[in-house]
Amino acid sequence: MTNFVPTPAAPAPDIVRCAYMEIVVTDLARSREFYVDVLGLHVTEEDDNTIYLRPLEEFIHHNLVLRKGPIAAVAAFAYRVKSPAEVDAAETYYKELGCRTERRKEGFTKGIGDSVRVEDPLGFPYEFFYDVEHVERLTQRYDLYSAGELVRLDHFNQVTPDVPRGRKYLEDLGFRVSEDIKDSDGVTYAAWMHRKQTVHDTALTGGNGPRMHHVAFATHEKHNIIQICDKMGALRISDRIERGPGRHGVSNAFYLYILDPDGHRIEIYTQDYYTGDPDNPTITWDVHDNQRRDWWGNPVVPSWYTEASLVLDLDGNPQPVVEREEKSEMAVTVGADGFSYTRKQDDDGADSQPQGFKLGAQL
Amino acid sequence: MTNFVPTPAAPAPDIVRCAYMEIVVTDLARSREFYVDVLGLHVTEEDDNTIYLRPLEEFIHHNLVLRKGPIAAVAAFAYRVKSPAEVDAAETYYKELGCRTERRKEGFTKGIGDSVRVEDPLGFPYEFFYDVEHVERLTQRYDLYSAGELVRLDHFNQVTPDVPRGRKYLEDLGFRVSEDIKDSDGVTYAAWMHRKQTVHDTALTGGNGPRMHHVAFATHEKHNIIQICDKMGALRISDRIERGPGRHGVSNAFYLYILDPDGHRIEIYTQDYYTGDPDNPTITWDVHDNQRRDWWGNPVVPSWYTEASLVLDLDGNPQPVVEREEKSEMAVTVGADGFSYTRKQDDDGADSQPQGFKLGAQL
Amino acid sequence: MTNFVPTPAAPAPDIVRCAYMEIVVTDLARSREFYVDVLGLHVTEEDDNTIYLRPLEEFIHHNLVLRKGPIAAVAAFAYRVKSPAEVDAAETYYKELGCRTERRKEGFTKGIGDSVRVEDPLGFPYEFFYDVEHVERLTQRYDLYSAGELVRLDHFNQVTPDVPRGRKYLEDLGFRVSEDIKDSDGVTYAAWMHRKQTVHDTALTGGNGPRMHHVAFATHEKHNIIQICDKMGALRISDRIERGPGRHGVSNAFYLYILDPDGHRIEIYTQDYYTGDPDNPTITWDVHDNQRRDWWGNPVVPSWYTEASLVLDLDGNPQPVVEREEKSEMAVTVGADGFSYTRKQDDDGADSQPQGFKLGAQL
Amino acid sequence: MTNFVPTPAAPAPDIVRCAYMEIVVTDLARSREFYVDVLGLHVTEEDDNTIYLRPLEEFIHHNLVLRKGPIAAVAAFAYRVKSPAEVDAAETYYKELGCRTERRKEGFTKGIGDSVRVEDPLGFPYEFFYDVEHVERLTQRYDLYSAGELVRLDHFNQVTPDVPRGRKYLEDLGFRVSEDIKDSDGVTYAAWMHRKQTVHDTALTGGNGPRMHHVAFATHEKHNIIQICDKMGALRISDRIERGPGRHGVSNAFYLYILDPDGHRIEIYTQDYYTGDPDNPTITWDVHDNQRRDWWGNPVVPSWYTEASLVLDLDGNPQPVVEREEKSEMAVTVGADGFSYTRKQDDDGADSQPQGFKLGAQL
Repeated sequence: MTNFVPTPAAPAPDIVRCAYMEIVVTDLARSREFYVDVLGLHVTEEDDNTIYLRPLEEFIHHNLVLRKGPIAAVAAFAYRVKSPAEVDAAETYYKELGCRTERRKEGFTKGIGDSVRVEDPLGFPYEFFYDVEHVERLTQRYDLYSAGELVRLDHFNQVTPDVPRGRKYLEDLGFRVSEDIKDSDGVTYAAWMHRKQTVHDTALTGGNGPRMHHVAFATHEKHNIIQICDKMGALRISDRIERGPGRHGVSNAFYLYILDPDGHRIEIYTQDYYTGDPDNPTITWDVHDNQRRDWWGNPVVPSWYTEASLVLDLDGNPQPVVEREEKSEMAVTVGADGFSYTRKQDDDGADSQPQGFKLGAQL
Repeated sequence: MTNFVPTPAAPAPDIVRCAYMEIVVTDLARSREFYVDVLGLHVTEEDDNTIYLRPLEEFIHHNLVLRKGPIAAVAAFAYRVKSPAEVDAAETYYKELGCRTERRKEGFTKGIGDSVRVEDPLGFPYEFFYDVEHVERLTQRYDLYSAGELVRLDHFNQVTPDVPRGRKYLEDLGFRVSEDIKDSDGVTYAAWMHRKQTVHDTALTGGNGPRMHHVAFATHEKHNIIQICDKMGALRISDRIERGPGRHGVSNAFYLYILDPDGHRIEIYTQDYYTGDPDNPTITWDVHDNQRRDWWGNPVVPSWYTEASLVLDLDGNPQPVVEREEKSEMAVTVGADGFSYTRKQDDDGADSQPQGFKLGAQL
Repeated sequence: MTNFVPTPAAPAPDIVRCAYMEIVVTDLARSREFYVDVLGLHVTEEDDNTIYLRPLEEFIHHNLVLRKGPIAAVAAFAYRVKSPAEVDAAETYYKELGCRTERRKEGFTKGIGDSVRVEDPLGFPYEFFYDVEHVERLTQRYDLYSAGELVRLDHFNQVTPDVPRGRKYLEDLGFRVSEDIKDSDGVTYAAWMHRKQTVHDTALTGGNGPRMHHVAFATHEKHNIIQICDKMGALRISDRIERGPGRHGVSNAFYLYILDPDGHRIEIYTQDYYTGDPDNPTITWDVHDNQRRDWWGNPVVPSWYTEASLVLDLDGNPQPVVEREEKSEMAVTVGADGFSYTRKQDDDGADSQPQGFKLGAQL
Repeated sequence: MTNFVPTPAAPAPDIVRCAYMEIVVTDLARSREFYVDVLGLHVTEEDDNTIYLRPLEEFIHHNLVLRKGPIAAVAAFAYRVKSPAEVDAAETYYKELGCRTERRKEGFTKGIGDSVRVEDPLGFPYEFFYDVEHVERLTQRYDLYSAGELVRLDHFNQVTPDVPRGRKYLEDLGFRVSEDIKDSDGVTYAAWMHRKQTVHDTALTGGNGPRMHHVAFATHEKHNIIQICDKMGALRISDRIERGPGRHGVSNAFYLYILDPDGHRIEIYTQDYYTGDPDNPTITWDVHDNQRRDWWGNPVVPSWYTEASLVLDLDGNPQPVVEREEKSEMAVTVGADGFSYTRKQDDDGADSQPQGFKLGAQL
């Protein structure tokens, strides 16, 4: 039975959006080549150990920090809150949860002021901040606009063994669920949760965790994503294209998953939908619906289900990975034990089997 | 001197977003042809006098109501508020402002419940509601997806003589300014104001008013807008294309303005930017910057400055139109008395004139 | 050793382009639904047994004929020649080759006049004609332009056991090779051959044949192809998406393969390149280059290599299928016996292995 | 009465396509900035006086030569012929026409061998060549692919006073007319003529000439053209955008006209249609059809009708400009004496006027 995270009496901090991720890379020069030369993220600032990056339309100092270190991992999932006082609120909230917290008035990274980092109940290093240096928003710098230009940080995606537990914790923190994947036994395989008015600021993917599944950047249009594939082909690094491009069932976004030199997974993402109304309808997908992860029924490669990045505690050590106890989405949908359908079964008795079993999608 | 609208002591209603416009059309069949057959809006419901329309990704009952009537005009600019209680808040707020209000528990249009309509201080018929019928969100109904598909209501645009007065009133109502157009004398020509996390839910355009300048629907990509032009060419109604397509300076969106059979102006709009952070930078444009209204310096046709739709009071009579007293944007930028530049003047003395005067942009 | 087709003394007919394919379908209503309702091809004419179809920009009577019959197969690959006299030339040419020919002054299908059909040396039913009824070219009928609009017939693709033999025969017939796939042992796996100024009018794919691999229609842009996928998802027939979308290495086109109700394979294709110069460079790809078939290294599903449509003789009976004797492309690239690389091996001795073996691409 | 150019007895040279233009620019550095930094053409070779440029998918040495000189003008319109012998054919042909010719075995520009240049009957400097250096075709160098990438030279456009005279001369030379603009009095205003299988390799625009109206490069998609506008806005050179972007009526292409630092006009162009069949239907447009030049009815700016580049004789001196004697397209369509319609008049007597006169299109 799920051991839920208690709801604190203290009010949750008022979160605006996912704001940046700090990742540890083992070869800074190679990572720079990937994020700056291949993906075209803009360098706000850099030194021998750290590179601060942002996409075209960002006006805060950075959305991604690459920090050199011995083990590829994620050091922080950082959220922006609505005011300086909300950093206090976050600190209080997590202290009441019994979590380890660390407050730094001068911030944990350049460009950012008063912040608190926590080891959250799911084992993830979360950060909350308001103060941030404004930098040039390059929105209309079309002289810098590349064919595969990334324009916005869109979301995080976290792997956690117990999705309902994580979901309840994030709902308490003020996130709302836009979509989820379940089965008829009530098992939840994944949930998408938002603060800003998109499908998500973060998602929970059921699996061994805590681990970071991916961080996603948005482009303006679909052809921008295709160009990233084309460019990776031209650079002969197409083996770093893990999955896609395709159309998600969940979120309706056009997507691509690629891998950085350390295996950190990056999603490129465009055109999900508005979720800002208080009664925005939540969409639940059947885990056996073969169009849930790819609307065109194209197969999800096994590595996408199994691989993810370690996350660090506040001392910089990797958090131990706990195994998922419930059924895995891969097992129930791919291979000998799994099945998925394209069309739901008819109810006429004569044809009671799910239809459109897509053979090519099975490995 | 500007006679500002007072700030009520009562709290402003918590507005979520612009939600629908009700417009009066003189020939319902011709308007249906334009909005349904040409533009492809989806009919939620219709009868002999009224058609309720929504774009692909909407889940509330409608974003546009066409109502048959004797005079082409706008009957309501409707906003959705965050909860049922906020409708009360709106009523209280406007009563304190001394505005005429009308409350209808059963709503003013089909599909919508408890609402209040007001004659606001600028003379516009504003509506506030929370209760609304949910309908099928067609987001993934790609079998219905036309080449020029409209996917979302984006914003309203209102003509008012005194922009600073209107701006202060809307800021009190909780809107935030994303961009504006001014000159060095301090005259404000226009302002863009938002509740949801886009550049605007409504904008104020300086001119004789109160009048409705346009209502805007969003597409996913730029080619969708081009298709609308191409289709209007094929239907030999290209004379209903008033301005564009082009790239806005303000908002950075790709745009098109077209005219319905009554001359109501519709904007088709795509790809502005995220404004959800509390300190989202406000951008001020110089009225003489020839790229402010069209980033490519293409001319704004005079009709775009001068023509707009009447708005109705709560009895259904047209509000009288008051002349703008301050300088008009058209006069200061187009023709013999106006000028605009592509490049700001250099400070080197030798070349002290604004540069790149675009002759073709002058009429 | 290859038994080449002799080169006739008679001049080859002057072929303009691939013009139409006649396919036999087992359920005309279901096929109509697929080609007309899903793909949006335009019906020039139809009766109880036959449907004549064309894409938007075609001005000849049809590019595709669906004929009802007992066995799904291809009845004709038809080419347009440069003048009426070239039909005579074709008849003479194939008679000299010893092929069975049939001449019909009134044509084999509606809308087409004097034609000759032949059972060619590879076993395919080829047709040559000049006279054809002109119909409305719908190029600017943007009122009919769907989001996934097909605009042009692009090419045929034929499966044949001995590619060099077929290539030599087609070169004699006036085709020029734009690209091919070979290995270091000199085995040819496929060749692309053109008359019009694109990469191909037909291609030869090595395999058991004669069979029809696919017929391809072009769209204007990449997003049109994505829409076809999205629509097939919406219609819950995503299991008819066999492969793609992707970027071809060969031809550089953006592509998609889908299957009609009988399993006939249709390619949707856009943006290959100009080949009209007499010395247009031929590109040879290494069969082990994992980007040759998909520039992004995405896997080719086995069915794409193994499945194809039967072709008919002039009596309407299926041609017997002869097995390919040489190595199969699938065997040498996929699975236990095959390999493919993303990067060629370095020559520095230290690293003499091909690099970037893409695990996900192996089944 | 028109004094037609006689048809030589000698066979016309077999022209493949328009191949390059040599233009004289007055400031090579500024021109380099425009063509290389702004437009992204690729430099094959350059020295102090000359720059050789090509778009992404070209495999011959260049499609554009910028040569430094005292007067902005065009030195050559160069066509590629089918074989070395066709250069002889061209020389013979023009000698019979009484034209001055100059043959250079080593070519007139780097990268090109045996060529003949002529002062043609219309006063244009035409060149014919076959031998050319092959260079890397960058088709799949997506690492070099800019957001506004030019991929192919598409066509030339020439201003000549007597269009029927020029048309007859070019038809003798083997060009075929795809489209033209006429009026009911039989005046021809323009004609589009092709050798390769697109709408044109060159077009004749009626006006004072001989002058060069524009040279056109193709992009893959429409968004690439929009990016060029956006970039010119970002660089604050939007005053070099002369006309567009828009959809042509003639050719159906999506277009943009921009001006280089000397005022040479460049068209960016995408998605016309296939014209390779011998009986490709010719389309004639009424000069008063307001959608002929812009399918959306957007106005053609006067400078587009009146401005063009001088052309040089074989000594490098500007050819004298002869005035057009017939009516000008601008005069009959724009301003007080002209008219244009969106919809043709009805024949019902009650409404006998052309309809949809687009006021905004008049200057």
